[in-house]
Amino acid sequence: MPTDHTHYLSELKSRLETDLFDRVIPFWMTHSADNIHGGYYNCLDRDGSLYDRKKYVWLQGRQAWMFSKLYNTEEARDDWLAFAEDGIRLLQKFARRDDGRLYFALTEDGKPVHIQRKIFSECFYVAALAEYSRASGNPEYLSEAHTLFEQIWEWSHNPALVGRPVLSGQTPLSPLSHPMILLNLIEELEPPELTTTPRYSQEIDECIRKMLLHVDSERKLVRENILADGSAHDSPEGRLMIPGHSIEAGWFLYHWAKHRKDGMLAEQACDMIRWSFDAGWDPEYGGLYYFLDAEGYSPAQLEWFMKLWWPHTEAIYALLLCYLDSGSEDDLKRLQRVDEYIDTRLIDPEHGEWYGYLDRQGIPTHRVKGAAYKGCFHVPRAELFSIQVLRESLT
Amino acid sequence: MPTDHTHYLSELKSRLETDLFDRVIPFWMTHSADNIHGGYYNCLDRDGSLYDRKKYVWLQGRQAWMFSKLYNTEEARDDWLAFAEDGIRLLQKFARRDDGRLYFALTEDGKPVHIQRKIFSECFYVAALAEYSRASGNPEYLSEAHTLFEQIWEWSHNPALVGRPVLSGQTPLSPLSHPMILLNLIEELEPPELTTTPRYSQEIDECIRKMLLHVDSERKLVRENILADGSAHDSPEGRLMIPGHSIEAGWFLYHWAKHRKDGMLAEQACDMIRWSFDAGWDPEYGGLYYFLDAEGYSPAQLEWFMKLWWPHTEAIYALLLCYLDSGSEDDLKRLQRVDEYIDTRLIDPEHGEWYGYLDRQGIPTHRVKGAAYKGCFHVPRAELFSIQVLRESLT
Repeated sequence: MPTDHTHYLSELKSRLETDLFDRVIPFWMTHSADNIHGGYYNCLDRDGSLYDRKKYVWLQGRQAWMFSKLYNTEEARDDWLAFAEDGIRLLQKFARRDDGRLYFALTEDGKPVHIQRKIFSECFYVAALAEYSRASGNPEYLSEAHTLFEQIWEWSHNPALVGRPVLSGQTPLSPLSHPMILLNLIEELEPPELTTTPRYSQEIDECIRKMLLHVDSERKLVRENILADGSAHDSPEGRLMIPGHSIEAGWFLYHWAKHRKDGMLAEQACDMIRWSFDAGWDPEYGGLYYFLDAEGYSPAQLEWFMKLWWPHTEAIYALLLCYLDSGSEDDLKRLQRVDEYIDTRLIDPEHGEWYGYLDRQGIPTHRVKGAAYKGCFHVPRAELFSIQVLRESLT
Repeated sequence: MPTDHTHYLSELKSRLETDLFDRVIPFWMTHSADNIHGGYYNCLDRDGSLYDRKKYVWLQGRQAWMFSKLYNTEEARDDWLAFAEDGIRLLQKFARRDDGRLYFALTEDGKPVHIQRKIFSECFYVAALAEYSRASGNPEYLSEAHTLFEQIWEWSHNPALVGRPVLSGQTPLSPLSHPMILLNLIEELEPPELTTTPRYSQEIDECIRKMLLHVDSERKLVRENILADGSAHDSPEGRLMIPGHSIEAGWFLYHWAKHRKDGMLAEQACDMIRWSFDAGWDPEYGGLYYFLDAEGYSPAQLEWFMKLWWPHTEAIYALLLCYLDSGSEDDLKRLQRVDEYIDTRLIDPEHGEWYGYLDRQGIPTHRVKGAAYKGCFHVPRAELFSIQVLRESLT
């Protein structure tokens, strides 16, 4: 890394610390706590006031994971541990069904409202259990996490098991979301630095192999859904690109490349991040598009042109990893571009936590800070991880 | 109706005729036909070229209905009848399951791809069967339509029957969509002018009563989802308004008010249309919003601020009915406002058929003319019905 950029990196670190510790974490601690029923309110308006009392299970798991991670890696604060426990208790008591599946949404007092035919409620619960097990020092949570992970592994290989109808006209496409979240979960279940006898080496290999099939090196793009052999399918689903998603997948891969000291994999991971960023960036108004079609057709999703918060959280951390790895000016420019967009468009210095939904021009379309899919997760995770790698690289 | 506006109305009629007969109908006849497998392609780019080969069952039914309706009420053209038959055949052969349910999406050669846990694939098939029965002179289609309608009636009163999980934390909310589509279907199944012994008088009463519960006369707004007694539920679902939807519901009601010569119901229907239009219109950029929250919160839907084609097709026909009924300047202004928006933003004089999806500012976000939910239906239906009432009122 060229020394003349240490000033920028150290200033970036200090801005991230201010946002995370003075604005983002206090926002969630103040406004999401439910001292009566436990767990966390999710639907928070710009100033943190409640506009819906439902509790979303993805976000319960993610927030319990986040506070456990802060406790384990940043500072052993009792209030963070207690806040994590609040979520774990609600999930254990109300979110799980007897068959291992978890609901998607609950009433504030824990009654089920909705269940998805997907594996993600379960995935984020596994991550929360694993991190909270280390925070609380109680191995039973980790053991529950392993058992459920093995169920999720089965479900991800056979979607009929979570209730998705299998019909004769369907073209079986492999989504990037499955191997990437499974790979990330293995890092949570058995962090290489804490694990002496890893259980999931074969599973890691399978996830990495499957993820790389989505990368088209010739076209320098990443497809969200592919045929089993990695080839492209000519349909809206087969042409779909989700830049934020493939950037996130890139840093999941990069972590494993570093664990395995695999330089070639690290380079593949960085290319996945760079190509996704370059394809996803709107040259006219800035910001990352939500969805794109690899052949330039209009994406099927109505909101394809919107700029969401989470592709930008994933981009800042992922591009920081790329830049710290390569030291290249191109990576620095990408990093600074997303940093400036975040700073001017997404951060809310007045009330804390980022805006979630902007139009193509970068104006907020929604006032909310929390919603069914936006909780205490992407912003604090990206900020915490970025601060931690910056701290390491700047010393 | 003040005579000095007949010039505007007659000029409007002539513009609608040009668009419908020179641009919209030819677009679908040229580009959606599948002469090999039957049925209609739906996913058509701006110029009519195919970007996906899947066939969407809502749109198969709606297009078969549309060409049957053109044949029955406009001109008995053999090519229109044959084109309607194309859709009916595909639906009968491939879309129906043994239990009466219909799939949502098929491959081009009819294999099932997706099924919804909703009643609408079946509803649009019933409408198509009824209209095609009159076009073909074959009463068996109408008889099939009645049988399926009675099944749909049951399903609409018990959503668990189409596979929606019933969970203890759910607040049962009544959607406007059910009574409005059922009321519209009864008009298709037994058009009052052709029916001597109506079967569904009680069902009509129930639909009208249920629909009117959604109208809040004090606040002058229409809620999409209400508690069983008509009261509001304080949640994003309970606060939801869909202006295009309640405008469409308004003209469904207005038709029955006219059939029943019920002046008070006609006035309620017109108010439903006016209030929905006034609440939904964007004072800054024009056009009708897709979704709104009755208390001014950010709607949960990401695309709430977009301007879609179909609320505007429903508005032009509904406001025309209101104006022809009232002769009021306010209704004329509303009509002219939506007419101008359509003329400048939605119509594509070059390739035919309207743009479907605009951003808040009124710029197309999608090039497509046909998609999973946009077919040969809202535009030609509103234009045909508008032309027909204008023709009647101008003579």
